[in-house]
Amino acid sequence: MNGKFQAIYAEAGAEALFLECDFLRRYLTDFYSTDGYVVLTDRECVFFADPRYFEAAEKALAGSAVRVAAGAAKEAYGYLAPYRTIGVPYPFVDLAAAGKLTAAGHELKDCMPALQHAMIQKTEEELSHIQTACTIAEDALASILPEIGEGMQEREVAALLEYRMRSLGASGTSFETIVAFGENASVPHHETGERRLKFGDPVLIDFGCKYEGYCSDCTRTFLFGDDGKHQTFKEIYGHVLEAHMRVLEELRAGMTGKEADEIARAVLRKHGLAAYFTHSLGHGVGLQIHEAPTLSPRGETVLENGMVFSDEPGVYLAGELGVRIEDTVTLKDGKAASFMRSEKNLIVL
Amino acid sequence: MNGKFQAIYAEAGAEALFLECDFLRRYLTDFYSTDGYVVLTDRECVFFADPRYFEAAEKALAGSAVRVAAGAAKEAYGYLAPYRTIGVPYPFVDLAAAGKLTAAGHELKDCMPALQHAMIQKTEEELSHIQTACTIAEDALASILPEIGEGMQEREVAALLEYRMRSLGASGTSFETIVAFGENASVPHHETGERRLKFGDPVLIDFGCKYEGYCSDCTRTFLFGDDGKHQTFKEIYGHVLEAHMRVLEELRAGMTGKEADEIARAVLRKHGLAAYFTHSLGHGVGLQIHEAPTLSPRGETVLENGMVFSDEPGVYLAGELGVRIEDTVTLKDGKAASFMRSEKNLIVL
Repeated sequence: MNGKFQAIYAEAGAEALFLECDFLRRYLTDFYSTDGYVVLTDRECVFFADPRYFEAAEKALAGSAVRVAAGAAKEAYGYLAPYRTIGVPYPFVDLAAAGKLTAAGHELKDCMPALQHAMIQKTEEELSHIQTACTIAEDALASILPEIGEGMQEREVAALLEYRMRSLGASGTSFETIVAFGENASVPHHETGERRLKFGDPVLIDFGCKYEGYCSDCTRTFLFGDDGKHQTFKEIYGHVLEAHMRVLEELRAGMTGKEADEIARAVLRKHGLAAYFTHSLGHGVGLQIHEAPTLSPRGETVLENGMVFSDEPGVYLAGELGVRIEDTVTLKDGKAASFMRSEKNLIVL
Repeated sequence: MNGKFQAIYAEAGAEALFLECDFLRRYLTDFYSTDGYVVLTDRECVFFADPRYFEAAEKALAGSAVRVAAGAAKEAYGYLAPYRTIGVPYPFVDLAAAGKLTAAGHELKDCMPALQHAMIQKTEEELSHIQTACTIAEDALASILPEIGEGMQEREVAALLEYRMRSLGASGTSFETIVAFGENASVPHHETGERRLKFGDPVLIDFGCKYEGYCSDCTRTFLFGDDGKHQTFKEIYGHVLEAHMRVLEELRAGMTGKEADEIARAVLRKHGLAAYFTHSLGHGVGLQIHEAPTLSPRGETVLENGMVFSDEPGVYLAGELGVRIEDTVTLKDGKAASFMRSEKNLIVL
């Protein structure tokens, strides 16, 4: 049993943990499969792999702390039988699956807090995967900027960007790519659509990809041609960028999520824009695109070295314009360090 | 209350239904959103939309049987308060969400059987969306075939195909695209990887996209160059195609999923290949890529007009070769009708 398993097992306080969900299986075993069952007891961590994955899993996990066993649901449930209290991650277990366990006489306990506690602190290997996911995403964006032209639809730009991320080695997107032209950028979670690009439009792109299961998250806002009517947009852009950069400069390990959020919110308040910053400063990023910690006015978690989260202030004037600037960031040696390298001063395409 | 709502409500046998999950919200309301809550009672169907969606939902659902209410979780839970027994879809409700409902004094009941019963029979509009998803997928595949060349990686072909589907109007893929070269095709659910294409390789592509939320599912197997060593492959291809076509010819409304499966299995048995057909003949296709009915040796559902499912026999010789030919199919006027139009005789690329 390695330290990770021991810590999670001890904190969960159940006789055995039972994990069916993709990203949690991967977190425990470091092996990716679309199916399988992981059981963690006080003695061992077992991965039940069916014939599709057994050989690959045995090879990949040889010498690791995980034992690979041949089998699927039946074998996994059989192995669980002697244990009464079973830890399962409540937000990722459906009622049908839970019903099978309780029908077999098990008592369930939520092990998600223990998993989340472990997962919030990234290892060097995890940080390296996130760095790769961020680099792929930025390289992909850089490669399509010269191809964005008048008359293109939002969804065409999204499709092109996703294709480039895949071509550069991403396994897929980490969430539905948001491409918003013109007034559509004023909706923080705009649904990418048919809107065509016009000269003078702001262009907001919120995008990310996955590498070895780990996510990146980035937003950039551009101008497509400067028609000289963008005084307000440019001022707001400057203020959002100031808020974004101030977080990178002033954030320190030991602050809470709430204090981090306040760094950006104070900048926007100073410019009279606090009311238009309608969401949180950031969220944790890892195997999930949204995980702990939360950087918001309600964020009580103390931010520590090795945590990864987004720094994404935004300002939205309904029906008019929106600006968001977002990096994926970690805390290293007590300070914020961005995974992103691309230009953040306003680019006119 | 329209007939759909009445039928689902009556069959569910709960005082109110509560739906949080994307595709079920969409099924009830015909409106797509990434968030929101739908409540169905004996009196009405209410969609709680937060400020991001309220305006669009009100416009889209004006004159429909759905009432749009402003609000999020708090408002939806408040509306539920007077009802004791709440129907929720067990396979799509996590324990954390369920815990909130039981803590508020509600008793839960699984309404998924009632929903599934309604969803299995597609309307003309649903069939038309599935047809569009199938046509986009086939057109995208046709467009990339001339671009598949020696040395390309599986994941490059997958990325290109997904890009074309998006460019032709798909909102995304309906599952992770499978591209398998050479011996990789012998794994029914091969994970698309770095394998490069060589002259003489079989190429198996299993792919699908979504249009208006509805899925397509298709598999084609090709030869990339004929190096004259493919006698076995070609024979097996012929037998799999025979099994696939026989289903299209002989399947009738009123048969069970088991009887449909047996049409294909009998053909492969005749050629001594039954042991290598290691999965089911098919699965239902709709808002989900895998839904009811099941066409397998254990499929008891009677197949009826308006149902949609895959016809996908396959033969796999471990480590050697694999052939699968799959169409998405419906039952119309008592007979099978494929949504696919592309060539199924063996194509040498």
